[in-house]
Amino acid sequence: MFKKILIANRGEIAVRIIRACREMDIMSVAICSEADKDALHAQLADETVCIGPAPAKDSYLDMERVVGAAMAVGADAIHPGFGFLSENSKFVRMCEKCNITFIGPSAEIIDKMGNKSEARKTMMEAGVPVVPGTKDAVYEAEEGKKIADEMGYPVMIKASAGGGGKGMRVCYSSDEFVHTFETAKLEAENAFGDGTMYIEKYIEDPRHIEFQILADKYGNAIHLGERDCSIQRRHQKLIEESPSPAIDEETRERMGKIAVKAAKAAGYYSAGTIEFLRDKHGEFYFIEMNTRIQVEHPVTEWVTGIDLIREQIRIAAGQPLTYSQDDIQVRGHAIEVRINAEDTEHDFRPSPGTVTNVHFPGGKGVRIDSALFAGYEIPPYYDSMVAKLIVYDKNRQLALRKLRNALGEVVLEGIKTNIDYQYEIINDPDFIAGNVDTGFIERFQKAREEKSEDE
Amino acid sequence: MFKKILIANRGEIAVRIIRACREMDIMSVAICSEADKDALHAQLADETVCIGPAPAKDSYLDMERVVGAAMAVGADAIHPGFGFLSENSKFVRMCEKCNITFIGPSAEIIDKMGNKSEARKTMMEAGVPVVPGTKDAVYEAEEGKKIADEMGYPVMIKASAGGGGKGMRVCYSSDEFVHTFETAKLEAENAFGDGTMYIEKYIEDPRHIEFQILADKYGNAIHLGERDCSIQRRHQKLIEESPSPAIDEETRERMGKIAVKAAKAAGYYSAGTIEFLRDKHGEFYFIEMNTRIQVEHPVTEWVTGIDLIREQIRIAAGQPLTYSQDDIQVRGHAIEVRINAEDTEHDFRPSPGTVTNVHFPGGKGVRIDSALFAGYEIPPYYDSMVAKLIVYDKNRQLALRKLRNALGEVVLEGIKTNIDYQYEIINDPDFIAGNVDTGFIERFQKAREEKSEDE
Repeated sequence: MFKKILIANRGEIAVRIIRACREMDIMSVAICSEADKDALHAQLADETVCIGPAPAKDSYLDMERVVGAAMAVGADAIHPGFGFLSENSKFVRMCEKCNITFIGPSAEIIDKMGNKSEARKTMMEAGVPVVPGTKDAVYEAEEGKKIADEMGYPVMIKASAGGGGKGMRVCYSSDEFVHTFETAKLEAENAFGDGTMYIEKYIEDPRHIEFQILADKYGNAIHLGERDCSIQRRHQKLIEESPSPAIDEETRERMGKIAVKAAKAAGYYSAGTIEFLRDKHGEFYFIEMNTRIQVEHPVTEWVTGIDLIREQIRIAAGQPLTYSQDDIQVRGHAIEVRINAEDTEHDFRPSPGTVTNVHFPGGKGVRIDSALFAGYEIPPYYDSMVAKLIVYDKNRQLALRKLRNALGEVVLEGIKTNIDYQYEIINDPDFIAGNVDTGFIERFQKAREEKSEDE
Repeated sequence: MFKKILIANRGEIAVRIIRACREMDIMSVAICSEADKDALHAQLADETVCIGPAPAKDSYLDMERVVGAAMAVGADAIHPGFGFLSENSKFVRMCEKCNITFIGPSAEIIDKMGNKSEARKTMMEAGVPVVPGTKDAVYEAEEGKKIADEMGYPVMIKASAGGGGKGMRVCYSSDEFVHTFETAKLEAENAFGDGTMYIEKYIEDPRHIEFQILADKYGNAIHLGERDCSIQRRHQKLIEESPSPAIDEETRERMGKIAVKAAKAAGYYSAGTIEFLRDKHGEFYFIEMNTRIQVEHPVTEWVTGIDLIREQIRIAAGQPLTYSQDDIQVRGHAIEVRINAEDTEHDFRPSPGTVTNVHFPGGKGVRIDSALFAGYEIPPYYDSMVAKLIVYDKNRQLALRKLRNALGEVVLEGIKTNIDYQYEIINDPDFIAGNVDTGFIERFQKAREEKSEDE
């Protein structure tokens, strides 16, 4: 087992990993930027190295500095958390060269899964359903129209080099295809200098369902059930739960098997997540694999009882899985709410500042993952998520009640947060009914704005 | 189900019960003394009634005021928590007369179990092992000596009217019997005006093992495994855990069955606890039954998954048990540490005052039951316990590691607490080995004092 792990992250996930190290009798080393010298993770770790100025590119994203710090303190492994360098294969290779174990999959797997078309190919070969679409690039509008007419509308027109929503357009009918295609293509050419396009079936109002995977270096892989993360604002998840109110035991077993097959096909090891969209008819389509721990991992931990960070560390150290699929039982219901320091009334802009008072709820079935404390100054440089509230109860209805009460008990003063906004969401009739899809927040926000205009 | 429950208590247990009410969609009413107007329970409840001055006898212990408040707000039930009026049969009768359901057993059961000799008799009849002792009163020293010689030393000489350790003496040999008996008898006569004595076998260095019971009004009763509460200072429990490191599955099943039999024999309903001493040879002896929820109930909640306060409320409302014995599985290991506002370096005297800063740990397997917040002024009138830290993990070793780290993260400023003291205990080799008995703290404290004198 590792003797010393450097945690290449900050905030609540760094705290989470430090705790796991302590519980495994492994020394923990935090890194921090100059802006994070007083941050909780920097205070809690056994050792802390300040590696550079506040902007992430000069500290948390600076591979040389991160690996350099690990070498300097004699760490034998690096846990990347999520974000930052967690899915950067170049960083993984640098760790390898320096004889430091990267707690995650290999660089090759990260590359394979990070390349959308290769990931898609791997999944198709493993029999995992993917969003139907063109295999080859499409250059001409008329050619695309023929394909789209055959596929059936709506379709998604996508730039091959795309990212951040650029060069992406939904087209709802044959009539508007040519115009939409040309617009998207022009945008792609302007943004990426590349007008190569693809056409995919557009999945309307899907649910976001993802399966948690654990796999070791010896070909063993299991799934830990699904998470429903349909409550998203501009692809940022806000609330996650497990199990999904839309998944029955039979579907869980079937999709879980497919997810395990996919992980095995990719030669995957470590904790990972296979993300699907589920359409209105209950069909699933692979969208991507995340080759790291996820923000929402606690809901899976609660319904399965398994500590995912510990397992990640064990797997990275070369230990075989200690669980078989039959050991995994999903019991009860867990829901996570992300608490962000942001101004929900002004386009959700980040609201850094000094937290003057913090009071979290407690009691049975309440978990807080946070890096906050009274007097902490949230720096303006990083992600606005500052805490996670996770509740657990026997079933969804009870978990929702617990969530409502627990969220109502949170006190966070000195900064603007999304707590009231989250409180509104969890009291929304559609959310309570479990009747949600990835368009929920857009509708919710629109209704909210209309209501506030009426007042 | 009840519409409105008045919580006749304060502190963390009142907060615990308010949360349970919320989760069951029941209105909660807090009562508070004048000293507790800003207390967390008074802030959290749906309604709060200030019922009198700070001394408990004028507020929390004043039955007329408590019942009067319940009548005034239209509460249909009262939850007594622990301490205060929770085992007062007169109070239960007063509730009954006012048509308010007392959330606990009947007045008759409380009386029966509160009377030590009657409780003992009930248990013996049910086949529950009790501490061997005289059935009839002993008035003469020589008569007692004959009995003690037969029983074997050490023996405990006890005043029938005893309480608070008065009129109680351990006798280690036949030689000293007469003198010890006379001393105890004189003390009893002086203290209670009654020199009626009993003689019992003295259990040396026992473990304190108690079984949690749930029973409904229809004769159904189950046990939820045991708690080991051997870490006590002057009969005040400091650390509790479940399961006990000294109990194997076979013993759990056997003693659990006996505990259930005892509860049934007593006609018991509600949550209750049957307390045993376990001697060095593994023999169990009934000592008493607690007819209320206990401070340490969270450890049982965590290893069984059952919410004991909810069950208490359901049972009181006349609902049958929803669990059978086969549904109960003890999984993993939970440990609770009581956090007291006290000065461990000065005879553990209470240390009330204003809490200037509070920071609790979080993450997987950590539960906080507390009524603290930054700026809260702990009043000097009540029990010094201000928070409970409960941890859970797969086994005792992991739970201990988690406890060590979690306790190390607690920040409580402005008052003196027993946190460092507890930290020393949980790092004691005997505690870590699970090698403890009710004499542990005395030895620990003595060693500690000697060490500090040496320094």
